Amino acid sequence: METASKVLFLVMDGLGDRPVAGLGGRTPLEAAHKPKFNHFAFHGATGLVDPVTRGICPGSDTSHLALFGYDPFQFYTGRGPLEAVGCGFDAKPTDVCLRVNLGTVENGVVTDRRAGRIEDIRPLLEGLNGTKVQGITFFLRPGIGYRGALVMRGGEAAISDGDPHSTGLPPLAVKSLVPKAKKTAVALNSFLEKAHRHLDNHPLNKERAKLGLPKANYLLVRGAGVLPSIPSFHRRWNLRASAIAAGGLYRGIARLLGMHIIDVAGATGTPTTDVRAKFAAAGEALRTFDFVFLHIKGTDVLGHDGKANEKKQFIERIDRELSVPAGTLFVATADHSTPCSLKAHSADPVPLLIHGPSVRSDAVREFSERAAAHGGLGRLRGIELLPEILGLLGRTPKYGE
Amino acid sequence: METASKVLFLVMDGLGDRPVAGLGGRTPLEAAHKPKFNHFAFHGATGLVDPVTRGICPGSDTSHLALFGYDPFQFYTGRGPLEAVGCGFDAKPTDVCLRVNLGTVENGVVTDRRAGRIEDIRPLLEGLNGTKVQGITFFLRPGIGYRGALVMRGGEAAISDGDPHSTGLPPLAVKSLVPKAKKTAVALNSFLEKAHRHLDNHPLNKERAKLGLPKANYLLVRGAGVLPSIPSFHRRWNLRASAIAAGGLYRGIARLLGMHIIDVAGATGTPTTDVRAKFAAAGEALRTFDFVFLHIKGTDVLGHDGKANEKKQFIERIDRELSVPAGTLFVATADHSTPCSLKAHSADPVPLLIHGPSVRSDAVREFSERAAAHGGLGRLRGIELLPEILGLLGRTPKYGE
Repeated sequence: METASKVLFLVMDGLGDRPVAGLGGRTPLEAAHKPKFNHFAFHGATGLVDPVTRGICPGSDTSHLALFGYDPFQFYTGRGPLEAVGCGFDAKPTDVCLRVNLGTVENGVVTDRRAGRIEDIRPLLEGLNGTKVQGITFFLRPGIGYRGALVMRGGEAAISDGDPHSTGLPPLAVKSLVPKAKKTAVALNSFLEKAHRHLDNHPLNKERAKLGLPKANYLLVRGAGVLPSIPSFHRRWNLRASAIAAGGLYRGIARLLGMHIIDVAGATGTPTTDVRAKFAAAGEALRTFDFVFLHIKGTDVLGHDGKANEKKQFIERIDRELSVPAGTLFVATADHSTPCSLKAHSADPVPLLIHGPSVRSDAVREFSERAAAHGGLGRLRGIELLPEILGLLGRTPKYGE
Repeated sequence: METASKVLFLVMDGLGDRPVAGLGGRTPLEAAHKPKFNHFAFHGATGLVDPVTRGICPGSDTSHLALFGYDPFQFYTGRGPLEAVGCGFDAKPTDVCLRVNLGTVENGVVTDRRAGRIEDIRPLLEGLNGTKVQGITFFLRPGIGYRGALVMRGGEAAISDGDPHSTGLPPLAVKSLVPKAKKTAVALNSFLEKAHRHLDNHPLNKERAKLGLPKANYLLVRGAGVLPSIPSFHRRWNLRASAIAAGGLYRGIARLLGMHIIDVAGATGTPTTDVRAKFAAAGEALRTFDFVFLHIKGTDVLGHDGKANEKKQFIERIDRELSVPAGTLFVATADHSTPCSLKAHSADPVPLLIHGPSVRSDAVREFSERAAAHGGLGRLRGIELLPEILGLLGRTPKYGE
């Protein structure tokens, strides 16, 4: 059999789960009707991945770095810079970048961390972009929906979150984590207060209030950091890569690694995304690129919402739309588990499937968490996956002679 | 399905074994009739643990530290201090602690390292406790049976063992391992000689000699060390823990880690222990504590004695008495293997079983060394077990976002 030269790398965000009583003690993936995934499992090899390492509950950011073969303990500098790059901001190495949620604050308390999942925050941010406070310039960029990035030019990154990560609490005052970041925290708090007044009085928010919608009147910031110094994916693996992902974080990581970003109409980063269009775009991209990263976010969203049946149905939809060009090395996995019973990420390992020419198939006939535990690929760490893939492509350099 | 919040952590000391001809080529665990363990294996997940790391033959001390999530290469300072704490001695950070066997020396040669497994050494030690030799004060504390602890106030820990670890040899002269420990070694040898004379002439030993019992007339010392500086279990894992264990070493480790020690009448640290009473006490403790460590020593004792059939029967007794409160995360494993064919510890990995709500069960239907090799938990190091458990409890902090 020939050797594959192209890789379709499918990451279903938060795919891994735990047994769900309402699904007869099966996980959403186990319960899903997924003939294509099972076909690939039957003819391919499976295993379990600890995205960061055993017993570590991964964020989507650290786990994607790991899945692309970059040790997060070495390269992760916080979520902010990844979001900023994902929102298309060309951050300088000294810029302090933060993730922003546009949230709702009423009577000093956060009542909605997503301002009713507002869909377009661009007009709200316009008047704030470029504001200067105490020698620091603040840039704002919208992401998808209520999400965005805040970049501070001038200042130090060692500051705490303003987002209380929970409703019913006041926004947190940002604090300096080292003495020299004190001025930065003071300036940021001052900017956030100023932005709150600006947003609260914005005509669009007055309009929202009239309609009974929560005002998008507060910048909830978190994950401050500067850009990591990181070698490109092409330099590290000698593979020309492109990325199909709607979410800012995933686009940010891909862009940071020098992957070519492909925009797909109808890709939303939600369970209503156009899965078929994404696979079609991936198939098209594989003519040009060696490695296509295809990210699907809906599985994670439904895990966070605890909707096991909807998660199962969404997996079934992915399976229906799944198409892989012949001769391609198809890798399907997840960045972490988001068990519906927890409504949060967990440290449970995620299933891995590799199918393609020259893959040693195993006895596993199904793509699922429990079946993959008995797979021929064994149990591996996230950073071991790219070397494994390179090996299957016959592109692993020899160590010794 | 809900997530467990309580953990019953059962360690069957020296449980792991090798195929035994007299048991039809099965291990004692494989040969044992153990419907409850098999039920938990069927509905739970299994795996193999290398308590320290692959190819390392663990002591009970290093392996328990590892199973509790403390890297022994970082925290282990010798068996002595763990025994001293287990015997209830409040050692100071500079005290040099040693494990003691009360043994039998005849004509200058060790003829029994356990003095006929003498059951109570308290009266023998009384006259020696508090002795001062060359500026060093010697404290003695009895443990279970022939076991005890010797603590030297003043002195250096870098000294060798006096216990020759074998009969037919004279007790070893304790040697200094660094120049500044020379005085300590000299003082200890002098004290041991003095103690030998005292014990040999003790009325209880004269009585034993008349009855044809071996004299308990020599302090066989080993494992010198000072207390490790170690964070408490609660601080490290945020779990309130209690311990049910008869053996001094296990109580010592638990006490050192700040676990609450529960005394159980009839718990002896031997194969005649009251297993049912221990499980009952564990069930009771789980109402109050998040994590209950239940230690059973008999499996190891029978392995050391090479009694495979008795080891099998003892495992059957544990299975009969086994009870786990509903909804509890039940973890069963061993600290090391003590194969009957070796009559000693070995580096063979030990079986692991985890059962409870939200555990992804695997295809393994039996709790045994060979079945667990195919289990869904894979093969893990001892220090990875607590993070794994924390993950199942949904208590693992997220790394990244």
